[in-house]
Amino acid sequence: MLKQFQIPDGDVIRVDSYSLRKVVKDIFINCGVSEIESEIGSDVLVSTDLRGVDTHGVSNMLRIYVKDYQDGKLNPSSNMKIAKESISTINIDGDNGLGILQGPTAMEYAIKKAKESGVGIVTLYNSGHIGAVGHHARIAADNKMVGICLTAGGTLVLPTFASESRTGTNPISLAAPSNKYPYFLFDAATSSIAGNKVRLVARNGTKLSAGSIGDENGIPIMEPMSVDVSEDFIDIPNLLPLGGNRDQGSHKGYGLSLFVEILCTILSGNVPNMVDPNGNLCHFFAAFNIESFTEYNIFISNMDAMLETLLNTPSTSEADRVIYPGIMEYENEQDRIENGIPLHKEVVEWFSSTSKLMKIDSVKLL
Amino acid sequence: MLKQFQIPDGDVIRVDSYSLRKVVKDIFINCGVSEIESEIGSDVLVSTDLRGVDTHGVSNMLRIYVKDYQDGKLNPSSNMKIAKESISTINIDGDNGLGILQGPTAMEYAIKKAKESGVGIVTLYNSGHIGAVGHHARIAADNKMVGICLTAGGTLVLPTFASESRTGTNPISLAAPSNKYPYFLFDAATSSIAGNKVRLVARNGTKLSAGSIGDENGIPIMEPMSVDVSEDFIDIPNLLPLGGNRDQGSHKGYGLSLFVEILCTILSGNVPNMVDPNGNLCHFFAAFNIESFTEYNIFISNMDAMLETLLNTPSTSEADRVIYPGIMEYENEQDRIENGIPLHKEVVEWFSSTSKLMKIDSVKLL
Repeated sequence: MLKQFQIPDGDVIRVDSYSLRKVVKDIFINCGVSEIESEIGSDVLVSTDLRGVDTHGVSNMLRIYVKDYQDGKLNPSSNMKIAKESISTINIDGDNGLGILQGPTAMEYAIKKAKESGVGIVTLYNSGHIGAVGHHARIAADNKMVGICLTAGGTLVLPTFASESRTGTNPISLAAPSNKYPYFLFDAATSSIAGNKVRLVARNGTKLSAGSIGDENGIPIMEPMSVDVSEDFIDIPNLLPLGGNRDQGSHKGYGLSLFVEILCTILSGNVPNMVDPNGNLCHFFAAFNIESFTEYNIFISNMDAMLETLLNTPSTSEADRVIYPGIMEYENEQDRIENGIPLHKEVVEWFSSTSKLMKIDSVKLL
Repeated sequence: MLKQFQIPDGDVIRVDSYSLRKVVKDIFINCGVSEIESEIGSDVLVSTDLRGVDTHGVSNMLRIYVKDYQDGKLNPSSNMKIAKESISTINIDGDNGLGILQGPTAMEYAIKKAKESGVGIVTLYNSGHIGAVGHHARIAADNKMVGICLTAGGTLVLPTFASESRTGTNPISLAAPSNKYPYFLFDAATSSIAGNKVRLVARNGTKLSAGSIGDENGIPIMEPMSVDVSEDFIDIPNLLPLGGNRDQGSHKGYGLSLFVEILCTILSGNVPNMVDPNGNLCHFFAAFNIESFTEYNIFISNMDAMLETLLNTPSTSEADRVIYPGIMEYENEQDRIENGIPLHKEVVEWFSSTSKLMKIDSVKLL
């Protein structure tokens, strides 16, 4: 993650990941979620923090989930219902449940289909926020498969040449197993930056990169810029598609966001939020059974060959090394299991006050 | 397509698309390709020109295919062989045939699997150049399905922070049917620009956009630049991943190129060109049977609602309108069927001399 998005050193408090798992689970239970789904939700969020994906871990979203449960916007006792099924596909109605609790189950369905027929595709609609999509893709890789997870929702992003935002940040993830090197895990928004990063630079007093957002008329801002915490567009930030402006390829980022929208939302029989702002979120899961295409050992050895080639590629003067998607996440995980998860002191305070209110144990500081 | 990549007005000659189909077919036949595959090859290339994707039509690649047949590098009488098959998947050995002749058949296999089981996935290895991937994705849309086609090969693109190029331009395409509006067709490289665009701006004397290529040390060039036709990097252009540099999201374009590499190359049991530069190209085809997820009429009506919302979005002062992937291609097709396909005069000369050598009729000028 770029420096401007990281927690300033003086504001970091490290917490024990096991105690964090416990308190997050207890918070979900307190919201009326079943014990087994609370365990899943806690695993999704804390695993995401362990991998260093701080934007999608406990810090930003958990308090929103809690509020949505308390306000009756999310169904804590949702039952996923199969709306349509074929030999290799399932379309699921999420019953207005939280996506992070449903994603792992949806991916397990895809894996089961893939074992039987080579590939499994699951679409999940009428669902809530799914967290970091890579978490769900990874479940396939843990089962000797290639996994894809996509999610669509929101209208924070400007189509190329548009003066009003229409599409979601619609991220794409793919996970694939390897042997000698940490597994491959790609997970990225199809917009230049994720929505809450505007908030992060405002809080940190740093700058957004060129090509991150458009101005109030939608014109791409192609130089680094500060964000005042009082500015209106923190909530409606006019994010740019990956590429920034048309000259630098924003039509590709825009097209990729629609790629995700079609597979998640329209394939599952729904309209995107640009048509119905009150619609729920939709997700897409794919599992490819490697043994249906080639031998598993050939696959992981070829993955190793590719990853090794990338790691051995000489770097420019801008960086110490060339990496691949997944390796930094692996290194973070090793560090954070051992040394705890760094949270912003404000987040730790939220855990303390919430635990007190809910009468549960709070998180253990290190 | 940006102005700097278009043929200068004075160099344009319009040719009749039906006569172009005939001459391209005859050229394939002259290279030893069967009549039926020659017809397919001609259809792929000329349809691509009709849609306005000039980079991937008859102008740039056909002469390379002819040379590769003549030099014995491509097998004109290849037989696609099924290497592995499951209920929903097929892995095919392309027998060193040309990809554009094999892609439509591979997608037909995927469609057949999808009819039977909801989704069909076909990987095709040991194959040649596949042309515009969108052409093959579109075949699924013509069959009331969502289609995806990906292709991987080459080492023209710099990974983020790398000083040497490693990945291919590895494009992604998705086609989806609609009703009231022209169908959706996204087709784009995961690099900032396609490789032959460096050649185009050199020929046209125009400039590359910021973030298109890296310098001789791999450092991203973040301002517009001219390209001298004599410069070495026209052949090894150090293309940047979509995003340009790390600050503007090149790690996402880089990750997407590996996403494509894994699904095309490693899933089919092969290593990418960064590991074996002599390896052939690999492709990936997916067909999703819409009726297995929702009702077809709901799907196309929801597609229409999304496309209409995008078309009705007010544009910035930079452009006349907001478009979506596929609509300009549709408009080009209407124009070019009626008024002919614009080719560079140098390309028309190539057709004349090649036709004479092969003793076939040349293309009809308009």
